[in-house]
Amino acid sequence: MKLVEAVLNGDRMALARLLTGLESESEASQKALDLLFPYAGKAHLIGVTGASGTGKSSLVSQLVLAFRRPDKNARPKRTAVVAVDPSSPYTGGALLGDRIRMRDLAGDPGVFIRSMATRGNAGGLARATASSVQVLDAAGFEIILVETVGAGQAEVEIARLADTIVVVEAPGLGDEIQANKAGILEIADILVVNKADRPGVEQTERYLRGMLEMSSKQAGLGLDEEWTTPVLRTNALTGEGLPDLIEAIYRHSEYLKDSGKYATRARARLEDELKGRIQERLLERWKMQTSEDDLQEALEQLSRREISPRQAVQNLVEDKIT
Amino acid sequence: MKLVEAVLNGDRMALARLLTGLESESEASQKALDLLFPYAGKAHLIGVTGASGTGKSSLVSQLVLAFRRPDKNARPKRTAVVAVDPSSPYTGGALLGDRIRMRDLAGDPGVFIRSMATRGNAGGLARATASSVQVLDAAGFEIILVETVGAGQAEVEIARLADTIVVVEAPGLGDEIQANKAGILEIADILVVNKADRPGVEQTERYLRGMLEMSSKQAGLGLDEEWTTPVLRTNALTGEGLPDLIEAIYRHSEYLKDSGKYATRARARLEDELKGRIQERLLERWKMQTSEDDLQEALEQLSRREISPRQAVQNLVEDKIT
Repeated sequence: MKLVEAVLNGDRMALARLLTGLESESEASQKALDLLFPYAGKAHLIGVTGASGTGKSSLVSQLVLAFRRPDKNARPKRTAVVAVDPSSPYTGGALLGDRIRMRDLAGDPGVFIRSMATRGNAGGLARATASSVQVLDAAGFEIILVETVGAGQAEVEIARLADTIVVVEAPGLGDEIQANKAGILEIADILVVNKADRPGVEQTERYLRGMLEMSSKQAGLGLDEEWTTPVLRTNALTGEGLPDLIEAIYRHSEYLKDSGKYATRARARLEDELKGRIQERLLERWKMQTSEDDLQEALEQLSRREISPRQAVQNLVEDKIT
Repeated sequence: MKLVEAVLNGDRMALARLLTGLESESEASQKALDLLFPYAGKAHLIGVTGASGTGKSSLVSQLVLAFRRPDKNARPKRTAVVAVDPSSPYTGGALLGDRIRMRDLAGDPGVFIRSMATRGNAGGLARATASSVQVLDAAGFEIILVETVGAGQAEVEIARLADTIVVVEAPGLGDEIQANKAGILEIADILVVNKADRPGVEQTERYLRGMLEMSSKQAGLGLDEEWTTPVLRTNALTGEGLPDLIEAIYRHSEYLKDSGKYATRARARLEDELKGRIQERLLERWKMQTSEDDLQEALEQLSRREISPRQAVQNLVEDKIT
């Protein structure tokens, strides 16, 4: 397939076209993904999540810059960003000027930035994100940053599936509330207090450490016992704290390798995707077997409250396909 | 069924027990829901959604107080709250003291407050919320307020299904970003700028009006043409602006009645629930027909990248059940 070859050869236009195809779930793009899938599985996936106002998009930009900069520990990494955040500047949705723009990164062939449309249902978004990550992975990007808003259940579900999960907070954002939201603290591998030049940074840090301690005292919260979640300060506007964050990410990557958790996380990711796809396929098959009239009739009966939702399912599923 | 009778007779303990049963999806509670379903369909459902920090929980408390207060236009309404917001004070998750506590409402038999656990998947949460609302509706609550965080896709999907959707903003929260998040502005029937005593309220209001104008100029955004979304100021701590908000809610209710949109929204809600339940039932049936070994084998092949996710679905669905 020509498209697949082009993507594997680093053709950025072909890559962009394929990602667009996957979002609209075209048959050709699905076939291309089948062929590209064996090449994926090498990238390190970093989920970056946090409420809006934490400066997480700027932090992502700084991370990209840092991964592209050669240093004593590592050669520059080919880096991609998938922004699932509708307020992310890559989408053109942000009107504020205080964010680092992507112009610093434009023109660098080792960087690819993609923002996901967030219309449609949450399950579809999760699946499109997974597919995009697989394609970027197959295309040879070594670091893939997935940026999500991290306030909702669906967004946490997306972030949960990265290799390394970075949760971003900022001082004075009503920390007590933000941190607990949707169980986001429990999934963090690295906690970042961004905007560390602002007043209240010590308080936020103390609060987060307290929360972490409390969580680790409770059993079964999904926290890794052998990994101690660091709490780091950054300032995404000046780049302060970035070297420590990068180091923590590499350290977590080592930990995943040594503990065998890379494989565990990759498998959990694939299992999640498989279940979503099976559910989708089952619904498609059911639709082919069910007449639109029957569905409308059931909806009428439901609206007149003659049957309950569960009884409607009984009529539409159990009694139709056997 | 004794439980059903008790709920219909206003037994609060029975109601609480049934709601707990629905969250854990017990068979007995599902049967009770079947029997209660015909009694539902009379309540006015109000979705209240907004980012944390907007004071939306306090606003919900004020709305409850207002609906319970007799005034010239209306007798007190039996009012229930379903809080799908993990940072809501009803869950005990909030540590801040600046919210109006529920003690003003405690002991009022015409008020019932329920918070939903937000663990588990987004689809399950939406379904449990729908079931809870149906039970409260059948139990005779005339106003049901559904409070969601309104930052994520799943939360917007839950809010979208109310009769009247109130979106709460606050000055100085990075309005440009908040308002656009997950398309939340597009679903608002009423926009509230809470904390109206704070600086920047005019700016926030102006911004929201501008956004509304822009949206209404674009076609097909799901905005009702015959309803002009009002932008109202409130202060949930003092109760200022509450009479106007209540009046707007009643006015929207009249609009829904006159335009026939009450029925449209109720039907859309049931359709959504039905689809979710069908999907769940199809998955259950598939699981019964598929051996765990086959699923594990497919996951192994996926992990070794011998097959793609789509090919795994082919093996597990198409080739198994015919």
